[in-house]
Amino acid sequence: MAPYNLMKENGKAAYLDSGTWATAAIKEAKLFGETVIVGSSKDDNYTHIPKGYEIPADADYFHCTSNNTIFGTQMKDFPATNIPVVCDMSSDIFSRELDFSKFDLIYAGAQKNMGPAGTTLVVVKEEILGKNGRTIPSMLDYAKHIKAESMYNTPPVFSVYVSLLTLQWIKEKGGIAAVEKLNNAKAALLYAEIDRNPLFKGAAAVEDRSNMNVTFLLNNPEHTETFDALWKAASISGLPGHRSVGGYRASIYNAMPIESVQVLVDVMKALETKV
Amino acid sequence: MAPYNLMKENGKAAYLDSGTWATAAIKEAKLFGETVIVGSSKDDNYTHIPKGYEIPADADYFHCTSNNTIFGTQMKDFPATNIPVVCDMSSDIFSRELDFSKFDLIYAGAQKNMGPAGTTLVVVKEEILGKNGRTIPSMLDYAKHIKAESMYNTPPVFSVYVSLLTLQWIKEKGGIAAVEKLNNAKAALLYAEIDRNPLFKGAAAVEDRSNMNVTFLLNNPEHTETFDALWKAASISGLPGHRSVGGYRASIYNAMPIESVQVLVDVMKALETKV
Repeated sequence: MAPYNLMKENGKAAYLDSGTWATAAIKEAKLFGETVIVGSSKDDNYTHIPKGYEIPADADYFHCTSNNTIFGTQMKDFPATNIPVVCDMSSDIFSRELDFSKFDLIYAGAQKNMGPAGTTLVVVKEEILGKNGRTIPSMLDYAKHIKAESMYNTPPVFSVYVSLLTLQWIKEKGGIAAVEKLNNAKAALLYAEIDRNPLFKGAAAVEDRSNMNVTFLLNNPEHTETFDALWKAASISGLPGHRSVGGYRASIYNAMPIESVQVLVDVMKALETKV
Repeated sequence: MAPYNLMKENGKAAYLDSGTWATAAIKEAKLFGETVIVGSSKDDNYTHIPKGYEIPADADYFHCTSNNTIFGTQMKDFPATNIPVVCDMSSDIFSRELDFSKFDLIYAGAQKNMGPAGTTLVVVKEEILGKNGRTIPSMLDYAKHIKAESMYNTPPVFSVYVSLLTLQWIKEKGGIAAVEKLNNAKAALLYAEIDRNPLFKGAAAVEDRSNMNVTFLLNNPEHTETFDALWKAASISGLPGHRSVGGYRASIYNAMPIESVQVLVDVMKALETKV
């Protein structure tokens, strides 16, 4: 929907290629006009966030992905630019404090930190809409959804309601600041073990490590069977990494308590006594 | 999505204008190309289904709406044509048996007879796709959703699951044939009272009356206050008609038991003793 609403006819858009979801967004943007990839970590199998790139001042907008679930990388800083900044925050929305006023369009599927699958949060500055000269089908037109107060179509009421409950839960925990502190503690605990334990190594560049998805590998693939048996015995599930990275991925979204992270750390320590 | 997937560049599509949702569909189709309105009951405030129209043989498809919630009309027959037939069955899917093989694309929002809001059923013949020469954004491309087995995006799992439960419930009741029999009995009970009771009249043409949404009016508007008090006292809710029709609308979807329809009929009878 970003290109439909923001890219001018014969316009161009700037994209940061930091992983799978960025690649998917770029593919769709190309249907609408010139798409400049300002930086890419593809050659490095997306194990770091591209840096030192320049954003063309004449692009209609700049698009980035704040967290890359598959590769376990996360943007810590966002570039300063005078063009509208669009950010896909699907996998780390409500996990940390950011200066949200710097973004012009934020979108995030609910299913990580906000609620059940089936709805998407969109925050958009109205002044950037209606300026690209395109005729936009109504369902894809942000301005129409704003005008109809998010009820242009029958809303997915269950997903919206459970999202409300989740946001109330975040508030009760002390808001995003408190949640971020806990997320930092969870990630620090796990990354510390990855760095300490000689049997493991992190998959992502240290400075770009995600606090939501922690990717790591065994130094010796022969330990795979023993390690897999250990974490399965500890009732951990969903730990295998995406096939394009291999190894392991611990997704520690807001809902994951630090006690569960400790279980994984204990299993990693236990592996040292077994091999 | 129908025009995006089926209308050729510089092509044209045929639409039957039978009410509000048809009008909305026509408005969107016009963004994609020539849109021929083969028949319309707009001049009659949509109180009947247009008939005797001709469908241009060179149109890319013919679009109709099987049931019109606001006006209380329902298509009983569907035209024979050699071009693809597209039907919006949102408000009467699973309510009656039809020769579904005659349709090339059926779509229906879940929220009437299938499950909670938040998902849409699409049944499409694969052979009509991929032939219109358009580049379609992935999320709007039926072929991509088929290829990904309806999991191109993270599906709205709650809505899909409750739809499954509803479909199992329909099966347990004896399938669509049994549900249709009950729907016919519910509608017959209510229309019989509308026709018998000298205080009321039906809003829609008799031959096009919907078995899902029964629209009716008081012959004497001065009885409104008394009637409104009676049905509210009987714990009936949601009975006022849409502002464009006025009067009353009883929505008697699959989930409504015949006992509840009887309550309304009793209230209508009671009005005769009060005025």
